[in-house]
Amino acid sequence: MSETESIKAIKGGEFLIRETQADNIFIPEEWNEEQLMIAETCTNFLAQNVVPNLSRIDEQEEGLMPHLMDEAGALGLLSISIPEQYGGFGKDFKTSMLVTEKLGAGNSFSVAFSAHTGIGTLPILYYGNDAQKEKYIPKLASGEWKGAYCLTEPGAGSDANSGKARAKLSADGKYYLLTGQKMWITNAGFADIFTVFAKIDDDENLSAFIVEKDFEGLSLNTEEHKMGIKGSSTRQVFFNDCKIPVENLLSERQNGFKIAVNILNIGRIKLGGATVGASKEVITQAIRYANEREQFGRPISKYGAIRYKLAQQAIRTYASESAIYRASQNMEEAMEMYMASGLDETKAKLKGVEQFAIEAAIIKVHASESLDYVVDEGVQIYGGMGYSAEAPMDRAYRDSRINRIFEGTNEINRMLTVDMMLKRALKGELDLMGPAQKVAGELVSIPDFGGSEDEGLFTQEKKYIANFKKAVLMVAGAAVQKLMTQLGKEQEVLMYLADMLIELYVSESLQLRVEKLVGMKGEGAAKEQLDIMRVYINDAAGNIAKAGREAINSFADGDERRMMLMGLKRFTKTEDINTTQARRNIAAKLIEENRYCY
Amino acid sequence: MSETESIKAIKGGEFLIRETQADNIFIPEEWNEEQLMIAETCTNFLAQNVVPNLSRIDEQEEGLMPHLMDEAGALGLLSISIPEQYGGFGKDFKTSMLVTEKLGAGNSFSVAFSAHTGIGTLPILYYGNDAQKEKYIPKLASGEWKGAYCLTEPGAGSDANSGKARAKLSADGKYYLLTGQKMWITNAGFADIFTVFAKIDDDENLSAFIVEKDFEGLSLNTEEHKMGIKGSSTRQVFFNDCKIPVENLLSERQNGFKIAVNILNIGRIKLGGATVGASKEVITQAIRYANEREQFGRPISKYGAIRYKLAQQAIRTYASESAIYRASQNMEEAMEMYMASGLDETKAKLKGVEQFAIEAAIIKVHASESLDYVVDEGVQIYGGMGYSAEAPMDRAYRDSRINRIFEGTNEINRMLTVDMMLKRALKGELDLMGPAQKVAGELVSIPDFGGSEDEGLFTQEKKYIANFKKAVLMVAGAAVQKLMTQLGKEQEVLMYLADMLIELYVSESLQLRVEKLVGMKGEGAAKEQLDIMRVYINDAAGNIAKAGREAINSFADGDERRMMLMGLKRFTKTEDINTTQARRNIAAKLIEENRYCY
Ligand SMILES: Cc1cc2nc3c(=O)[nH]c(=O)nc-3n(C[C@H](O)[C@H](O)[C@H](O)COP(=O)(O)OP(=O)(O)OC[C@H]3O[C@@H](n4cnc5c(N)ncnc54)[C@H](O)[C@@H]3O)c2cc1C
Ligand SMILES: Cc1cc2nc3c(=O)[nH]c(=O)nc-3n(C[C@H](O)[C@H](O)[C@H](O)COP(=O)(O)OP(=O)(O)OC[C@H]3O[C@@H](n4cnc5c(N)ncnc54)[C@H](O)[C@@H]3O)c2cc1C
Repeated sequence: MSETESIKAIKGGEFLIRETQADNIFIPEEWNEEQLMIAETCTNFLAQNVVPNLSRIDEQEEGLMPHLMDEAGALGLLSISIPEQYGGFGKDFKTSMLVTEKLGAGNSFSVAFSAHTGIGTLPILYYGNDAQKEKYIPKLASGEWKGAYCLTEPGAGSDANSGKARAKLSADGKYYLLTGQKMWITNAGFADIFTVFAKIDDDENLSAFIVEKDFEGLSLNTEEHKMGIKGSSTRQVFFNDCKIPVENLLSERQNGFKIAVNILNIGRIKLGGATVGASKEVITQAIRYANEREQFGRPISKYGAIRYKLAQQAIRTYASESAIYRASQNMEEAMEMYMASGLDETKAKLKGVEQFAIEAAIIKVHASESLDYVVDEGVQIYGGMGYSAEAPMDRAYRDSRINRIFEGTNEINRMLTVDMMLKRALKGELDLMGPAQKVAGELVSIPDFGGSEDEGLFTQEKKYIANFKKAVLMVAGAAVQKLMTQLGKEQEVLMYLADMLIELYVSESLQLRVEKLVGMKGEGAAKEQLDIMRVYINDAAGNIAKAGREAINSFADGDERRMMLMGLKRFTKTEDINTTQARRNIAAKLIEENRYCY
Repeated sequence: MSETESIKAIKGGEFLIRETQADNIFIPEEWNEEQLMIAETCTNFLAQNVVPNLSRIDEQEEGLMPHLMDEAGALGLLSISIPEQYGGFGKDFKTSMLVTEKLGAGNSFSVAFSAHTGIGTLPILYYGNDAQKEKYIPKLASGEWKGAYCLTEPGAGSDANSGKARAKLSADGKYYLLTGQKMWITNAGFADIFTVFAKIDDDENLSAFIVEKDFEGLSLNTEEHKMGIKGSSTRQVFFNDCKIPVENLLSERQNGFKIAVNILNIGRIKLGGATVGASKEVITQAIRYANEREQFGRPISKYGAIRYKLAQQAIRTYASESAIYRASQNMEEAMEMYMASGLDETKAKLKGVEQFAIEAAIIKVHASESLDYVVDEGVQIYGGMGYSAEAPMDRAYRDSRINRIFEGTNEINRMLTVDMMLKRALKGELDLMGPAQKVAGELVSIPDFGGSEDEGLFTQEKKYIANFKKAVLMVAGAAVQKLMTQLGKEQEVLMYLADMLIELYVSESLQLRVEKLVGMKGEGAAKEQLDIMRVYINDAAGNIAKAGREAINSFADGDERRMMLMGLKRFTKTEDINTTQARRNIAAKLIEENRYCY
């Protein structure tokens, strides 16, 4: 990649102030044959190995989950993006996202899979030295060893850096002796390798250690009883002067919190992928049930109330998916760029993901809340059967609920979204002030109501999105000015801003996706996708207006308030469209195809 | 009650076209000492008998639930509103609502209690002849016999009248022989008395029968496995030429559907009461947890993100509650009025409830969705512990979800809300056309922007609510005109209208409640309630605007559309208020009192 190209590449968070061309994003309609084959392998694996066993998995039948992991390993599903030198396939990030998405429909199995391949493997892959990687990665890649990740403690959840676990060097200098209690550890019941975070002596920051299950002083509590993902092993892990050879310190002393954060960045976008996979499956089940179940003499899929739900489920899922793969591609390109600029592969990958940490947090929130919407309406479509443990919605509903809690709660991710954005602006990495001032200037000038001459298929939506950006910049700019250092304490304002950013990013991703799709296949082949885009952006405008209004009303007064509210109205104005008809069109195709088909 | 008073009494559905005076509603701040003592009995009963046993109850420990029912019976809790002649306390409807509310915090026990005292007892109480009442009611009132209600079948849920169960007279004319399969029958596992709905021969409509568990030909399936309310017995009940003495036909042949519907009317408002009771308990738990749990060096209740949630939980709950007791009082007054006009007590009670069936459906939807909001944020506030079966939110979250499904799904109740309203208008019972035309006229005249001189504490909110009514009338009137007989098929429009009606009714109830409260205790003692009112109505305006806009855009075009949208904007305009500060005030008091306190 040439220097000029790398300068032009979009940076994380820059979506707020820069326009993206549809050609520059990746859309899921572009998967190549090899990727589709891998996806099919995943789907077949679930159909054959996981779906028939969901109840046995949820009962945590002895040995079943590790056995499924072995089988997934035998198919290569645990090592898609592991470098070939460690026995993996060395595929790109998007392909690993696709695998995560497809397996995301596998309920508890999906959680075990994600934890193993993500937080269970990546700390060592990205931060291990050669010896550590050679020792652990091939076995994690094959599934012979299973991985877990021990960060959370009873008193340290969202505030992960505050954990009490402590390590000290043994008298002979050969071991770290680790004492502490870790909680909510996924895969703990069968994991062979634990990446454990703890402070050494009185360090300010965490360090990370690679701990094997047989190291002296490690013990497991019994399984936690949970609302859902009951098949996923979750335990407390106790360390009592646990003997960790010094060579098992991961990366440098006190580098643990950074590792934890960076691994979570990947985890967040991956979680987005998994929830989209789950959503698609739930939608398909809901469509099938609605087509089969008859009341008042016809299938309930004939009723507008049901069609509305099916359409909304598809709209939210398609929108999330658009953002996820756009960001995945961005990460991949950033990785390539960093590699081209001379960074080694591992560092380049980490920096690529970190670059788009804002987008990852956005996606985590949007996709997990979309899935919760999808399962909730799934239950409702099933009626009484939605409440039955014999039908699939009960499990889907319970399993889904974890996604807004782990990998950083959605509150934490919302706040991070805004926080990271502002920090980048402060550091001069993102020029928000310039554009924000420009918008502020626009507020006092006479608005340009001249309709553009160009009446292209996406003219209007592009204008809306440009306006959404102005809305966010206006509110964020004013909030920063008004509240200054207080802003961190004004969490409600952070939440409103996050909601605005999320709707902006997802709207834009969706618009660009549909634009690219129309470019590829023509307008006729994307009629419903155009409807999805229109309805989503119409609703997004309302959400942005509401959040913006609450924010403005919380910190502005008098004339300034009036002016900003007027600006907000202008920036969130959309033409009236028949959303009801659009949703019917979207649902009609789902019902006809009897499955999620977008 | 004098003739003039009875003429002036408000009718069901009339809230849309008539103003109510704050003095004319009942508010929960008016419970008298006796009622508060009864409430305390309920609270103590739960604390001593139910809460310590929640897990055992959910495991359906043999005999436990019927035993708890017996204990509740011994305290008189099963017979609060049963006439004294049948061994009850003969208390008024509101008091029975209060008991339902308080016991609503009892998870599965609440469901067993509600089913027994509601659908299990009331069909006989309201429709039984003297002999039937004398035989069954005293034992149902004491709890010696437990009741269940068999309407739903595998193929007949929402469409309850379509069931296949059939009864025919035996050759000797002494028995009805009933054959069929009933599904999802609450309390079936231990019920002694089943009210069963089935058609006789080829009747068009259902009849109802009182069936004792020992009647030959009745059998039970095993317990259903459910998402939640696991302690509530739910079974299929099979009837195989089940021998029912002819004297156990309830009411008249083919009167069953009417019985079912009328009993559901009561069930809906009672469900509202129960969900409010559950909400308050969950909010208290969430507050306590937020006050105890520390992250980043302080209790999480100090964080704006958490305070926002606590405030919203309280706002929705207080709003639901306002509507519930307003409607309960209305029902009670209607009952008295009917009695005064010469109807016998039973008929008067039924007609009183039926009169406010629209309000009951509204309440069912609003209160069940409020509880789902409350438990969802409850889980979120608990973070990882929200997902643990050891903490209370998991159960609350799963148990809550049934409420949007039974007693008529929320979709069915939304449609009924609009449907009943329009039917009453057609029958001339409600003059909607006049007011709707007046609003339509207003659309083409110059709006009166003159601010009123009177700047009372509620002037603004009263104006908003008057405008909300105009918004509903405008959209409903146009929808009826445009879509005519098609309207039933345009379910989306029915749903939008229902959402508008719900927000209107609840907003008005809340405003009237706070007004009456201020009248009773002064403004200073109701500061937070005033904030609750302002935030709720502010949000309601947004919701009404959104639903109205989607409705209008679905059926109107051109100038007409433009005019209606302008009208809608005018009718849903509210002054900007600092909702963030208001929510903080509301939360501050909750946090300080460490419990739900409104
Ligand atoms: C099933 C399951 C599996 C898990 N797997 C793992 C695993 O494998 N490894 C691991 O290390 N951890 C794991 N976790 C832990 C998970 O990451 C934490 O539960 C999560 O980070 C939240 O922490 P917490 O539970 O302590 O909640 P808390 O941090 O106590 O949060 C409680 C509430 O307070 C809010 N809150 C907290 N701080 C703030 C603030 N500053 N401002 C505003 N609001 C705030 C939160 O958003 C939440 O709403 C798992 C958890 C579960 C339930
Ligand atoms: C735990 C539990 C306890 C219960 N207890 C009892 C009991 O004690 N006695 C009893 O008789 N019944 C009981 N029920 C049954 C309950 O009342 C029904 O489940 C409910 O009425 C819904 O019917 P259904 O399950 O057949 O759903 P369906 O009617 O099949 O509905 C499926 C979906 O279609 C929608 N739908 C249906 N018709 C239409 C339409 N015309 N237009 C638009 N949408 C439509 C529904 O809203 C729902 O979203 C219980 C159910 C449960 C789960």
